[in-house]
Amino acid sequence: MLTEDKNQTESLRERLRLIIFEAETPRGKAFDVVLLWCIGLSILVVMLETVKGLDAEYSRILLILEWIFTGIFTIEYLLRIWCSRKPLKYITSFYGVVDLLSCLPAYVVLFFGASSAFGVVRALRLLRMFRVLKMVNHVKGAEVILHGLVRSKEKITVFFFAILLLAVIAGTLMYYIEGRQPDTSFTSIPKSVYYAIVSITTVGYGDMVAQTELGRFITTLMILTGYAVIAVPTGIVTSEMIRMQETDKTSDACPSCGVHGHLPDAKFCRRCGSSMDERR
Amino acid sequence: MLTEDKNQTESLRERLRLIIFEAETPRGKAFDVVLLWCIGLSILVVMLETVKGLDAEYSRILLILEWIFTGIFTIEYLLRIWCSRKPLKYITSFYGVVDLLSCLPAYVVLFFGASSAFGVVRALRLLRMFRVLKMVNHVKGAEVILHGLVRSKEKITVFFFAILLLAVIAGTLMYYIEGRQPDTSFTSIPKSVYYAIVSITTVGYGDMVAQTELGRFITTLMILTGYAVIAVPTGIVTSEMIRMQETDKTSDACPSCGVHGHLPDAKFCRRCGSSMDERR
Amino acid sequence: MLTEDKNQTESLRERLRLIIFEAETPRGKAFDVVLLWCIGLSILVVMLETVKGLDAEYSRILLILEWIFTGIFTIEYLLRIWCSRKPLKYITSFYGVVDLLSCLPAYVVLFFGASSAFGVVRALRLLRMFRVLKMVNHVKGAEVILHGLVRSKEKITVFFFAILLLAVIAGTLMYYIEGRQPDTSFTSIPKSVYYAIVSITTVGYGDMVAQTELGRFITTLMILTGYAVIAVPTGIVTSEMIRMQETDKTSDACPSCGVHGHLPDAKFCRRCGSSMDERR
Amino acid sequence: MLTEDKNQTESLRERLRLIIFEAETPRGKAFDVVLLWCIGLSILVVMLETVKGLDAEYSRILLILEWIFTGIFTIEYLLRIWCSRKPLKYITSFYGVVDLLSCLPAYVVLFFGASSAFGVVRALRLLRMFRVLKMVNHVKGAEVILHGLVRSKEKITVFFFAILLLAVIAGTLMYYIEGRQPDTSFTSIPKSVYYAIVSITTVGYGDMVAQTELGRFITTLMILTGYAVIAVPTGIVTSEMIRMQETDKTSDACPSCGVHGHLPDAKFCRRCGSSMDERR
Repeated sequence: MLTEDKNQTESLRERLRLIIFEAETPRGKAFDVVLLWCIGLSILVVMLETVKGLDAEYSRILLILEWIFTGIFTIEYLLRIWCSRKPLKYITSFYGVVDLLSCLPAYVVLFFGASSAFGVVRALRLLRMFRVLKMVNHVKGAEVILHGLVRSKEKITVFFFAILLLAVIAGTLMYYIEGRQPDTSFTSIPKSVYYAIVSITTVGYGDMVAQTELGRFITTLMILTGYAVIAVPTGIVTSEMIRMQETDKTSDACPSCGVHGHLPDAKFCRRCGSSMDERR
Repeated sequence: MLTEDKNQTESLRERLRLIIFEAETPRGKAFDVVLLWCIGLSILVVMLETVKGLDAEYSRILLILEWIFTGIFTIEYLLRIWCSRKPLKYITSFYGVVDLLSCLPAYVVLFFGASSAFGVVRALRLLRMFRVLKMVNHVKGAEVILHGLVRSKEKITVFFFAILLLAVIAGTLMYYIEGRQPDTSFTSIPKSVYYAIVSITTVGYGDMVAQTELGRFITTLMILTGYAVIAVPTGIVTSEMIRMQETDKTSDACPSCGVHGHLPDAKFCRRCGSSMDERR
Repeated sequence: MLTEDKNQTESLRERLRLIIFEAETPRGKAFDVVLLWCIGLSILVVMLETVKGLDAEYSRILLILEWIFTGIFTIEYLLRIWCSRKPLKYITSFYGVVDLLSCLPAYVVLFFGASSAFGVVRALRLLRMFRVLKMVNHVKGAEVILHGLVRSKEKITVFFFAILLLAVIAGTLMYYIEGRQPDTSFTSIPKSVYYAIVSITTVGYGDMVAQTELGRFITTLMILTGYAVIAVPTGIVTSEMIRMQETDKTSDACPSCGVHGHLPDAKFCRRCGSSMDERR
Repeated sequence: MLTEDKNQTESLRERLRLIIFEAETPRGKAFDVVLLWCIGLSILVVMLETVKGLDAEYSRILLILEWIFTGIFTIEYLLRIWCSRKPLKYITSFYGVVDLLSCLPAYVVLFFGASSAFGVVRALRLLRMFRVLKMVNHVKGAEVILHGLVRSKEKITVFFFAILLLAVIAGTLMYYIEGRQPDTSFTSIPKSVYYAIVSITTVGYGDMVAQTELGRFITTLMILTGYAVIAVPTGIVTSEMIRMQETDKTSDACPSCGVHGHLPDAKFCRRCGSSMDERR
């Protein structure tokens, strides 16, 4: 009897594991979709809590919703620990920590109440926003972007270095030129470098602007140089994706050794040298 | 006699259908061009109606023009119903609804007059602006863009997800850092997330700006990260279009050896040298 | 004697024509470079004339410089008419009109003096700025960009249409939402459409900003949609240039018929069918 | 004895040269990393010196750190002169001048003190920021960007010319239209051209904005035209990088039949099937 019970529990655990951790089965997919909605709505609730006007009226409803979502995430977290084949590895993994942070701060916040708006409790309240990171696990194709970024990591670093170099030099020049004006906003080099980065990236808030003719001239030069530099990283990722696509496109496998990715006009396999004419 | 009449009517209906629904015949093209001009001018009239200074002087002319365009669109709508082979399908289609909305609100507005500026009538007045959607049907190549967007739909979704993820995390951080400043504009998380999106997309209105050194530092990091993420979707659509172009260029096979990928002006196969004229 | 004179004049005219109209000879190149400097400096002079502080001090020098440049451009214009094989065709051509407008307004302005700052004279003074168009004729590679733009003309039109469509719809929505706010800057649809275009293109001046939560939400949606649409034209021109490059790359000519632009693995000429093995 | 000493010194000089000038050996790499950190921290120190609030508290620590970094850069500079095979060539090279400017201004500044904030000393203080240029020598891949920019130098020049052309014409128009408004910021053509460049590059600070309907219309046209022009240089660099990549992929020829364009992992020629191992 006891062994049977154990077996039943084991089989339930295995079935739950498939639903919660895998997305291949229909139930697994449904679980993913429901969880995505819960995360999205939960973030909306935390966002609305901070709006001044709305908070007074709807605070009760928001509080109840927050309780519900915290409950769901807590149950999900406990089930994941129970189902997982290697619970410790899950708990210490990135997603394990994110899952814990999705429910833990809520309890602390609900315990202390919304009264103490600043300090540690305020930080904990906002920590709930990081539930958005739970989504990464459930959105298909998120790794495609991550992969693309990781593959061109080195080149992106060099690009950031180029922007920083330009920003430091242009920022220092702007600080030297504009810093002497009476009502200047270029009061320090860090602020001037911030101005340079905001300009090079074409954001241009307008909270800091050049007041002298020379300052405007340097700004113009800086923006145009930034344009030439910025065209490069766009090209990096584009060419990276075209290469990935090309490898996909020549997807015929060699009939002998099964290697993929031949050029479209290949007659012989490039790895084993056997004829590839059968494939046509 | 009656049958002849019917036949004549039928033939007229068919000819009208060719002019109104198809753009291949010269008359069909002329109809399209005239209609495009009417839509454009009609939108201009609705736009100018809302300008304070101009309205007083030209209001009479604008009113008359509005009557004329409404008349044209009404006749066009009725003719389309009469000509269409499946009138019900047309009426319930996207373009059918747009065509109805292009003339119906005008009557309600002209009935109530320009006096009641706000409320339902105001909404109806502005609904006339959606006449611009009628254009989609008449601009060649509009589907090319739509196709391109639809084909890379999934990847664009992932890209939007990446921007939202970054905006939610950076927005929350900015709210935590800047929200405590006395004259802050970061009064709620929704506003902070709006700030983050406006910054990441390099719009940068400047209505909300960081006031603290740390806030400016986070903003800089956020903008640069956004830059790396945004380079990706540009690459997506580019590579998509290059693939489409390549397929166009290389679709004919050699009738002798079956090799694909010839240049558009090829008369002889580049691999076996046999003539390729059969394909034309 | 007279015929000799005529011949000498004719030969001088021909030599001058080579220098002024062609850029192949060393003298022709030198002429181009000198003229480019004159145009650039002349524009600088006209620009500096409008600066309030500088004008008082340097006005005399600027006036003298302006006389010199006007003289140079007048002599150049007269020489061009004299040298040209088809003077009438040159005078009525785009560059002929630009060359005339580069010297004519200066005389009118110098005649009336700098006193009457506004009105027709002011317009004529500013017309001298269009001397910049003279440059197009002398900058190598300017046609490369023009060609690229002309070749993808249709697609760019469709892209502008897409932006306008989005701007009209989003602008109308913003006018409806924000127009009711007390201190709104969304006072008319044209202004709202201007706001929408400035936002979609990520310029974002910040002179008009959303004040309501809903307005900010619509703005966010509009910006993100604009991003997806804008990725397309970038792709258009990129793919166009890659295609041009690819044709350049396979630049081996057929040994029999001399046709260029074969694919890299071509064994037989695609136009005459003869073997191309000699080229390796 | 003396010869041995000389030999020892010579060998030490050679070993130091390998560490300081080359980055292949482990010690050379370590030297590079340490120097990069020193440069970065040194720049941070100079930046923080200009911040008003921080300076008072931490000025003593910053001064000590500045002494340390200046000492390190001085020793590095002297060692480089001593180690270099051609000291004069190093001293007069770009990196030699940058290395000198990294330590020299610090001595002048420390001698005069932080008291005289403006004038020559202020310029010298800021000159220390150019230490950032020392980094170029030590960051791998920085030349990749430089190479890419240099290779498409001509096309980038043409692109800048196109932007300037558009900016000059649009700026003049804006000056003519907006310059007559009472509270205009379009007070001169240089300012209007600055506005045009800031708009075309989508920076859009918002310190200068159109006030008239016509001014806003011209601005809209200018931005959209700029968009079409700006799509071109992005394409230029992208296509340049794709070409570089393709050359990397396809440079080995088959030793038997001479066909090029094999994939990087090819062991057998895809056209004749013979082994390609000889090439490695």
